[in-house]
Amino acid sequence: MGKLRFTMTMSLDGYVAGPGQSVENPLGQGGLALHEWAFATKSFRAVHGLEGGESGLDDDRVAAWNSNIGATIMGRNMFGPVRGPWGDNAWVGWWGDDPPFHTPVFVLSHHEREPLAMQGGTTFYFVADGIETALERAAEAANGRDVAIGGGASTAQQYLLARLVDEMEIHVVPLLLGAGTRLFENLEGGPAGYECAGLVSSPAAAHYTYVRQNA
Amino acid sequence: MGKLRFTMTMSLDGYVAGPGQSVENPLGQGGLALHEWAFATKSFRAVHGLEGGESGLDDDRVAAWNSNIGATIMGRNMFGPVRGPWGDNAWVGWWGDDPPFHTPVFVLSHHEREPLAMQGGTTFYFVADGIETALERAAEAANGRDVAIGGGASTAQQYLLARLVDEMEIHVVPLLLGAGTRLFENLEGGPAGYECAGLVSSPAAAHYTYVRQNA
Repeated sequence: MGKLRFTMTMSLDGYVAGPGQSVENPLGQGGLALHEWAFATKSFRAVHGLEGGESGLDDDRVAAWNSNIGATIMGRNMFGPVRGPWGDNAWVGWWGDDPPFHTPVFVLSHHEREPLAMQGGTTFYFVADGIETALERAAEAANGRDVAIGGGASTAQQYLLARLVDEMEIHVVPLLLGAGTRLFENLEGGPAGYECAGLVSSPAAAHYTYVRQNA
Repeated sequence: MGKLRFTMTMSLDGYVAGPGQSVENPLGQGGLALHEWAFATKSFRAVHGLEGGESGLDDDRVAAWNSNIGATIMGRNMFGPVRGPWGDNAWVGWWGDDPPFHTPVFVLSHHEREPLAMQGGTTFYFVADGIETALERAAEAANGRDVAIGGGASTAQQYLLARLVDEMEIHVVPLLLGAGTRLFENLEGGPAGYECAGLVSSPAAAHYTYVRQNA
């Protein structure tokens, strides 16, 4: 099988989403600004069907992390604000009719729901029996390509704690959010067993790549 | 007067010292490794009376932050492990007879103590009446040059909360300590009012420079 990997953008003070997440503001106060470095790139824009954008180091990082992804796993909070049972199934994600994944997406949830096929190759599958099952199903769907953890922080933490993440890249931007959701907490003194495989920066972000060391 | 500024090295997961700080291990478990990028530089070695070392981007950052410092402020825990009254005054710092400051150093403490003159131009003064007083005395001693906050995290946090810090540079190294002392906490949703003035990196560290915005 391919690798399990994720990429996440973090403020210098450690937050991957701002405080006060809501339907109107899914990334929380200040959270959208975290991603401006990526929004500006040619590769990000292309995934979202837009022309133009910057090339260069930041664009190279986005392109590398979008390549060879065969399936995506995400937490329920990243999929949407609905809590508890899915009700009338009206919520179909934040991304409109043609989500930017273009692969099977496995949504971690405690509640069953029928698969949801969107345009452009994205189908959401809802997995109620744990992160290992979600990874098995995603790996099978990826058919040899890599599996991406789309987010959010809690999902990444669960896979890091289980030592299932093969590679991660953390983009640290020079924002100070002051509050919000941290990536590096709830890890019981970890993440252990990762070594840095690269550090490069543009004026907009520093990119830290980690790979899991062999046990 | 000059500026009040500090520089601090932080792990990617946000720690400026490791867990379990002690007399034997003043920077905590893994804490010394935070500073390897600096130890390797020509400018760091020169301050400590050593020859050799690397030049280049990291060395430039160390040199810039060591220049034009006329006085230093530090917290009591950075000065030493003694708690409560100073007793027989036997503790004279971690740094031997010739500390690497070569300026007046103002140590925040709740307990009075006579000034302590060391070799090489370092004199430790103990300030029991608050951070503003320490800054006033340090600024006067600096005689127009800048005042450095030597550390640790708690001292930096107190000056950030009081909005007295003019500039800070955070060096983020690709270590994951997993636990320890964070710089960016206890800041009541801050630090507010700082903007990034520069981001550069070597393979060993990314350097984020912040300046206080005019109110």
